[in-house]
Amino acid sequence: MEFSARQKLIIDIVKENEPITGDNIAAKLNLTKPTLRNDLSLLTMTGVLDARPKVGYIYSGQTIEPLLFEKLYTKKVDDIMIPAVFIKQDTSLKEAITDLFMYDVGSLYVVNEGKRLVGLLSRKDLLRSVLTNSEESIPVAVVMSRMPNIVTITPDKTILSAGSKLMQQQIDSLPVVEKGTNDKIIGKITKTRIMNHFIEEGIKVKAHNE
Amino acid sequence: MEFSARQKLIIDIVKENEPITGDNIAAKLNLTKPTLRNDLSLLTMTGVLDARPKVGYIYSGQTIEPLLFEKLYTKKVDDIMIPAVFIKQDTSLKEAITDLFMYDVGSLYVVNEGKRLVGLLSRKDLLRSVLTNSEESIPVAVVMSRMPNIVTITPDKTILSAGSKLMQQQIDSLPVVEKGTNDKIIGKITKTRIMNHFIEEGIKVKAHNE
Repeated sequence: MEFSARQKLIIDIVKENEPITGDNIAAKLNLTKPTLRNDLSLLTMTGVLDARPKVGYIYSGQTIEPLLFEKLYTKKVDDIMIPAVFIKQDTSLKEAITDLFMYDVGSLYVVNEGKRLVGLLSRKDLLRSVLTNSEESIPVAVVMSRMPNIVTITPDKTILSAGSKLMQQQIDSLPVVEKGTNDKIIGKITKTRIMNHFIEEGIKVKAHNE
Repeated sequence: MEFSARQKLIIDIVKENEPITGDNIAAKLNLTKPTLRNDLSLLTMTGVLDARPKVGYIYSGQTIEPLLFEKLYTKKVDDIMIPAVFIKQDTSLKEAITDLFMYDVGSLYVVNEGKRLVGLLSRKDLLRSVLTNSEESIPVAVVMSRMPNIVTITPDKTILSAGSKLMQQQIDSLPVVEKGTNDKIIGKITKTRIMNHFIEEGIKVKAHNE
């Protein structure tokens, strides 16, 4: 169930002004009370608002589920992205693997002087290079995945679209690049980060329902 | 918002018998129609049921969100677990790394003859063993994580609890072991699988709302 724009507006008004009568809500919206009757009934019946006789509506805060989809999926990449670890093109393979453990990350981003993304090294890339007996002293530039073959995302996109890209491309992380900056990197979003986001929200809802 | 047990029962009855009158729903539940009034109003107002004058209630199928929490979190590990790739203790490090690429997985499970779990090798474990210059011919038994230091889960647990374990333990995969069998392994559940589950459900809801 998704609330309409007007219903969301009513929730906001009640949150800020509680207790508030139906007449006053209607006044704030420049509408008549009968126009709002259905919206107010629905919000009361779903438990989002509490209607107290002779007092007015108050926000129950009791149900967070109606907005669950939004919290989970339409939040922006910007809200949950995490810092990325950068290395340079001439970093050796051995140093890169060490960095991966030092910072305990699943991928390293190779950048140039302007912090523009030129390549990406995943745990899998590093393991593959080892399997093919690459010398540990060769620079990462030799084995990294290279732009423009790297899928990136901008911070204004939704978590759902970031997750869809990770799923469809079967990759573990997406560099977040500033919009219109020719790949200036500002963070990353990973499968782990997205799963943790979903689990954290789930734990909150569960605690709330108990 | 979480529907009550009775409301869920009503939804099921309508799904199976639509169109069905309020009186007939009440009869099937051995209740009077007035007792059901509030439930039926709520189900109608939230759009789950459609009330057609002189016809009865039909299931709108229009809102899947009220049950979103359940679909996402209270589903069982059993419903989404995937096959695991098994190796034996005497597999060489080199063979194990090759298997990881051949099957394109993030972890290998080391089992004994009875398919009981004895160890686990992650991409990270393999990379670490390479970094510390382990010979590629040594058996995986030397470098694997070993029971009982491996966190496992049983198939009857919820996705929320599997995800919480992955998050808290900061690991990428959980072996799924049959309950009461002394670690007989029947599958695995990974961060990737859980993220994909959430994203797939999100895509469905979004398509539905459009």
